[in-house]
Amino acid sequence: MAEREPEPGSGEDRLIARYFRPLATDPGALGLRDDAATITPPPGSDVVLKTDAIVAGVHFFPDDPPGMIAKKALRVNLSDLAAKGANPAGFLLSIALPKTVGEDWVAAFARGLGEDADAYHCPLLGGDTDRTPGPVTISIAAFGILPTGTMVRRGSARPGDLVVVTGTIGDAALGLLVRRDPDTAGRWRLDLRQRDHLLARYLLPQPRNSIAEALRRHAAAGMDVSDGLVGDFGKLCAASGVGADIEVARVPLSDAARQAIAGDPSLLETALTGGDDYEVVATVSAAARDTLMAAAKAAGVPLTEIGRIRADRPGVDFLDPAGKPMLFKRPSFSHF
Amino acid sequence: MAEREPEPGSGEDRLIARYFRPLATDPGALGLRDDAATITPPPGSDVVLKTDAIVAGVHFFPDDPPGMIAKKALRVNLSDLAAKGANPAGFLLSIALPKTVGEDWVAAFARGLGEDADAYHCPLLGGDTDRTPGPVTISIAAFGILPTGTMVRRGSARPGDLVVVTGTIGDAALGLLVRRDPDTAGRWRLDLRQRDHLLARYLLPQPRNSIAEALRRHAAAGMDVSDGLVGDFGKLCAASGVGADIEVARVPLSDAARQAIAGDPSLLETALTGGDDYEVVATVSAAARDTLMAAAKAAGVPLTEIGRIRADRPGVDFLDPAGKPMLFKRPSFSHF
Repeated sequence: MAEREPEPGSGEDRLIARYFRPLATDPGALGLRDDAATITPPPGSDVVLKTDAIVAGVHFFPDDPPGMIAKKALRVNLSDLAAKGANPAGFLLSIALPKTVGEDWVAAFARGLGEDADAYHCPLLGGDTDRTPGPVTISIAAFGILPTGTMVRRGSARPGDLVVVTGTIGDAALGLLVRRDPDTAGRWRLDLRQRDHLLARYLLPQPRNSIAEALRRHAAAGMDVSDGLVGDFGKLCAASGVGADIEVARVPLSDAARQAIAGDPSLLETALTGGDDYEVVATVSAAARDTLMAAAKAAGVPLTEIGRIRADRPGVDFLDPAGKPMLFKRPSFSHF
Repeated sequence: MAEREPEPGSGEDRLIARYFRPLATDPGALGLRDDAATITPPPGSDVVLKTDAIVAGVHFFPDDPPGMIAKKALRVNLSDLAAKGANPAGFLLSIALPKTVGEDWVAAFARGLGEDADAYHCPLLGGDTDRTPGPVTISIAAFGILPTGTMVRRGSARPGDLVVVTGTIGDAALGLLVRRDPDTAGRWRLDLRQRDHLLARYLLPQPRNSIAEALRRHAAAGMDVSDGLVGDFGKLCAASGVGADIEVARVPLSDAARQAIAGDPSLLETALTGGDDYEVVATVSAAARDTLMAAAKAAGVPLTEIGRIRADRPGVDFLDPAGKPMLFKRPSFSHF
């Protein structure tokens, strides 16, 4: 149902050989010269499996730099491996390209992808390249390794656990608003550095893989924040059959986010519910709290305590400074 | 960059809970209630990894029955696991849906997917659901298990090996022509059963997973035929550093394909190069030939010897009954 070209060296083969083969450094990738790849997990391991796709016009802007798009596609998956406590082992790439995308785009995409595959020790193992009459669509399946049975779950938070979150929350959601309407930066009285911080946080997640092992050893439960802290942490509590009190004043915000919210307090809801954070929210027993905090510090990952798991009733209360639960119009991002 | 909806129970969550959770029967899927899945390979195993995507208007017709689309999406991946000698362990589903696709479509899609997940013992482990402004796009990553180091490779054919192929070749490529132009069936003087055979072979691959273990034990090299026998087997020989002689008269054809080719001999090239066969082409040493043939028979999979690996020069000659190599205009399917 699409055009055909002579072999040997079809366009697809040439594309793969030129741009993607150099990324397939793992022996299990077989140089992308076979139909499938292999990983050999060490004895006593689980393989953690995750897939997440990004679509032009939905998850990124079609004119974003191709290298950044590649990195975002990989990082949204790496973020899940981090939150689950797994070390990256590699990934499969499935990419559908419209005819309007030229070889320059593919070259830049592969370059960015290769930089992150190196940086996160997560090699390309295999993939599939297709034409599409639609937008650029990138689906990555990423694999992690950890000792059997040690994946950090959503459903294992316990009453009395403390709630912690990495980095800062809300930057990407605010960055998306700035990207859509550059005038917002002026209305919010952001300086250039603040504006660029928010834009960068939307463009490119910073997954927290350096804290994965500490989470696996010390956290009780965890997940990455991709659809907003309020909705995602609500899912964690629901899966664990617990409730929680979160002190909103303790939720870590960048100075750019603080500046924006100071000018327009309604943006606090955007920050807490907008998503694209790719931070980790986790719970930790009171006994393990200091150890986890020290491990995060050693890994260079900011980790902030923001609340506590309660036993008496389900649901999550995001408490304002007066101790009153906030009400959210749209607690979580959903495409549907 | 897309609409938002209130939690709890976003549209995406409801869709997953209603239609996909029933398919997630493996404990490693965690009921699709976590961010990632796990598989625990038995000690001494490799995990075989494969991803293949299908796009509406490229790999299937948008008005194909949703259950058939689901099965095709899974089966094109299962076919690779079969050819590699791996037993299916599960899969991840990444699906992007346009707004024009309603809940009925999703229900029928999930029903078909579940039927095949059961039939092939390949449970849904996790996935991702997105909106797209483009066509329905389904990317599956499938996982197989086999003893470490035993994956059937492309690059391990040896001079003197016999070349074997499962099932029949060319039906799907001819079926696509019939699907595009129903008048062809009349021109080729196909009866209804023959026409429906070709159409069905295009619509729905029949991957050869029941022969996977026999291939792993007895085959020297192998791959599935998805882009046409000529091109794909050429890749196998190139990866192995060998050449081969194939006797075209021995290539197994259905009676429908024979009928079509009798009417229009140029269709022989279509059959040999058109692709979408999802059969397995393999090589086997002369010593192991009879054992593999017997194992295939026991598994109920037709297996036909069609030629021999040679050492003296690279390339594959498809020899006509006079012993003369055929020349192909387009040896292989390529989207690029």
